[in-house]
Parts: sequence; C-alpha cells; structure tokens
Amino acid sequence: MPQEFAFINWLRSRTPADSRVLVGPGDDTAVLVPLTRPILVTVDMLMDGTDFHLSEVGPRAAGRKAMAVNLSDIAAMAGVPTATVVSVALPTPGGREFGEQLYAGIRDLADEFGVSVVGGDTNSWAGGLVISVTLLGEATERGVVRRSGAKPGDWVFVTGPLGGSILGHHLAFKPRVREALKLHEVTGLHAMIDVSDGLAADLNHILEESRCGGVLFETAVPVSPAAFELSRTSGKTPLEHALGDGEDFELVFTVSPADGAQLVRDQPVPGITLTKIGECVDAGLWLEENGQRRLLEPTGWEHRL
Amino acid sequence: MPQEFAFINWLRSRTPADSRVLVGPGDDTAVLVPLTRPILVTVDMLMDGTDFHLSEVGPRAAGRKAMAVNLSDIAAMAGVPTATVVSVALPTPGGREFGEQLYAGIRDLADEFGVSVVGGDTNSWAGGLVISVTLLGEATERGVVRRSGAKPGDWVFVTGPLGGSILGHHLAFKPRVREALKLHEVTGLHAMIDVSDGLAADLNHILEESRCGGVLFETAVPVSPAAFELSRTSGKTPLEHALGDGEDFELVFTVSPADGAQLVRDQPVPGITLTKIGECVDAGLWLEENGQRRLLEPTGWEHRL
Repeated sequence: MPQEFAFINWLRSRTPADSRVLVGPGDDTAVLVPLTRPILVTVDMLMDGTDFHLSEVGPRAAGRKAMAVNLSDIAAMAGVPTATVVSVALPTPGGREFGEQLYAGIRDLADEFGVSVVGGDTNSWAGGLVISVTLLGEATERGVVRRSGAKPGDWVFVTGPLGGSILGHHLAFKPRVREALKLHEVTGLHAMIDVSDGLAADLNHILEESRCGGVLFETAVPVSPAAFELSRTSGKTPLEHALGDGEDFELVFTVSPADGAQLVRDQPVPGITLTKIGECVDAGLWLEENGQRRLLEPTGWEHRL
Repeated sequence: MPQEFAFINWLRSRTPADSRVLVGPGDDTAVLVPLTRPILVTVDMLMDGTDFHLSEVGPRAAGRKAMAVNLSDIAAMAGVPTATVVSVALPTPGGREFGEQLYAGIRDLADEFGVSVVGGDTNSWAGGLVISVTLLGEATERGVVRRSGAKPGDWVFVTGPLGGSILGHHLAFKPRVREALKLHEVTGLHAMIDVSDGLAADLNHILEESRCGGVLFETAVPVSPAAFELSRTSGKTPLEHALGDGEDFELVFTVSPADGAQLVRDQPVPGITLTKIGECVDAGLWLEENGQRRLLEPTGWEHRL
C-alpha cells in the first residue's frame, strides 16, 4: 500500500497486553486465541460528507464515531466487544498528525470498552476520508439477542430519548454496551436493535424479523431536547424527529409483559431510564394517540447531514 | 446508511449453507460458532486509482482483487480462510448493477476458497470506489506460520515468478492458499510472507522479524515474462522488476537446509515450482552474483499504477 504509515503499529504499541492476541505487529494477520463462545463480527464504513463533515468535526471525532457505531451493533446483540481491525483511506494532505488524531478517536472508545486493536490497513489517497471498522465480539453465556424473538403482547422499551442526533449526539453518544449486558443479565430479552435508521424503521426491522406487529404510544416516546431544538426550524414536529431521525444509538428491545413491568418498577440499569414506548401486536406498525391507532410509515434515515 | 442496497443479503442468499454461520441477514452482526483453533483476522482496503483503475478494469475485477489480497494474507500464515465481512463505498452513478458486479468478483474467489460472506456494509457516495474486506480464518492443527521464525542457514524459497504484476497479474492472480496449506503439511515452515510490497522488501520483513540476514542468489530468482516485457520501456532490468515491483502474491518462505533439499527434490506442491532463491545469514540483506555479495536495498512498492 502506498504511504503505509505505521499508525496501526503505533496504535498497537499502546494497546494494553491482551491474552487474546497471540501475535504482534509485523505479521500478515492478527491471531486470536480460541474463544469458547459464539463470535460476533460486524463492520461499518464511514465516509466524509456522509457520516460526518470532516472539516467541521476533525479526525478524532470521525474516528470515535467509526468505533462507536460498531460498538453499538455489538451492544444490540448483547455481546461483549473484544477486538477490532481498522482500515482507513486518509486524505493525502492530512499527514501523520491527521492519522494519529483519527486513531486517538478510535482508541478513546476501544480502551473504554476493552477492545484490542489487533490489525489494520492504513492508506492515503486523493479522495475523502473513509474509515472501515470491523469489530469482533463474543456472546455471553446467555447467548446472543437477535431481532427475531419478539412476540405479540411483548412490551417495547427504549433506553433513552430520541431525535435530533444530527445536532451532536451522533458524534458524542456512548454506545450502550454495558447497558445491553446488564439487561441481558437481569431480564429475558426477546429481541433487540440499536436505533441507527430511526425508531420507526428499526422497530420495523424487529417486527419484520419476528413476523409480528407493533404499536408505539405517541406520548410515551421520549423525545430529546435536540429534537425540540431542531423542530423549531425543520418544519417537523419533535415527535417526527424522534421517530425518524436515526443515529440515536439507543437500544430498542422487547420483553414479556411480566418482565416489562419489573423493568419499569426496578429500573435496574444504572444511569439510564428504561421507558416503555409500545407493545407488540399481531401485525402492522402503528402509532397510538388517545386510544386511536394510525398506521406508521417505517421511514428512517433520509438526510442526516 | 444512505442508499443501503440489499447486496449483502443478495450475496448471502447465494452463499452455500455454512454450519459456521448461526444467524442470517437482518441482525446487527454475524454470529459464528466457536472455533477450536486460533482465529486469524486480516483486513485490506482497496481504492480506485491506487489499487486499480476502475474505468479500465471494471467493478468485478476490483471486487475480485479485494478478496484475493486478503486470501493471500491468510495464505501467508498458512491458515484456512473461513468467513468475510465486506464494506464498500460505491460511486453514486454506479447503481445496483455496479454493486452486483463488484460482489460477483468477491464471490468468485470466496466460493472457490470456501469463504462465507457473513456480513457487510454497503454505502454509496460521490467519491471513488473503496472496498474494505475483512477476512477471518483459522489455524490448522499445525498452528500458524509467522514471519519471525527464520534462522541463519535456512533456505529461502519462492512459489513462482516475480515482477511486472502491474501488467495484469495483480488482478488475476490466484492466492496461494492451497499451496501454503500443502507446504505446511509436508515441510517444516520456519517463516513465510506473501510478496505484496516486493521480494526485497518482503524478505526484509521476514529478516527483521526473525533478527537475521539473508542473501538472494541473483540468477536463481524466477523472473516473470511480464517483468521482461515491462523492462523494455521502464528503464529497469527484469531482475529489478522482480525484486521490487510487488503485488506478485507469491509466497516467500524459509525452511531448514534438509527440508529445503527435500522440497527441491520432491516438488510436493501440485501446479507450482518451488524455487530456492537464497539463504538466511547472520545479518544484512544481500544480492549474490558470481559469488560476490552486494547490499540490497529493501525497496518495494513505489508506484504500481
């Protein structure tokens, strides 16, 4: 690769010793010791102008987001993130400082969540910044939580307020890895997803995979302050932002009514409020207001930037 | 992600049933069943204008190369490739047909080498084509072969002719996965690497990791017809092309003299000729001609396109 900088090696030299990583820099691939549990693999690619505006946010925030969205995918499966490989196409003018800032952003979250950076591919080119993060994880002893386990009658929960992420949350959010693991430990998760496309769209993913329907209670959906702020100029209501903006990276999950009632009562996850926002039904995606249901379009992401 | 096409799902629907893959399309991450052996992870990102000229080669060849270079990395460790996730940034004008051609190229090699495509992230943007392939593999029961095991006295081998890859081989080469596994089975591999940066540079990687030196026998290095063709107009000798061009994706490895003699005699790998091209020494990187040694610069890739 042209101008292959030593960023990955630099990065790895700063990674705490990890018994899962057998070989160090210099070999063709990373080698991980066998895991005894199912392995999770997820990848997300972020591009300048689509997922962030580099000129506004800088390389560190871009790197952080690239790691964060992948951690959120592992969280959505209630998995434990373990190791990552990172490939980047850096804009040529950036130079070494640019790459170090980018990786500092990746490392901010990798360190916090115990993820080892085990390899990568660093390139530069005349095009815009592209970051691809592949994140490996493992299931806990309770297995993984999929999208397909929701049942009619289930209660639908969300882990935090939604909407207006574009105003900053999409760069600063903390992936709900620990919250997912805590939930997996204390309750019987039927289905789970992270809100990336938008609440309506992502709940619809669960419903389609689970072959059931769902109703959202309009007044129950927690709407973020940013959604209100955005609605002042966007021509949309705060609720529309909460339903459709996406990139909230909160978790939406379903549990049995009995487990749901207990979650509402106990609020077992430190630092967040679990909010019941709906229920699963036989078919369709609905929004309920004052006891009236109307069909809800599973619209999600349209233009984030 | 914007314009998230269903290519990955389309692709997965064409992947043969694989007992290693637990969940299908629709979940946030792929889940693989536990492996009992060390896991290999490698990633390579390819960009239009750097690793290929899309307008000349088309998306299928670009996709094929993206998978091929990763397979070559697994081959260099004498590993068995198992599963892959693919992230792409497609140029917006391409449309669905473009993406399908790209993935057809990926699938051409994935199928041939028994690799399951278990996930991905498909984006489009106004920039150039970027393909990032993360390939997982597993070690055989004999473990992995690293770069660091060469010893003074070892014989250095290569699996095929070198140089001039830019004339076509870099797009059409067959990664030496089977050849590596066969070698691992029949001989005692001390160190191995695939020739991506160039013979001198990549042998130097082995030597640095192994903390020894090496000498290449000038007349023993197999020079490809393409190196001769290129030398007619390049101002370099065919040997210089063979030593420095890179992207040959042949394997360079070292074995004990006894094992080396047996390899030369038996030629145990179907379809290829194993050529002894040098020996490991205490220190330095040397080129030997008529019994005279001169220092060899570990120059590798400079400008491929």
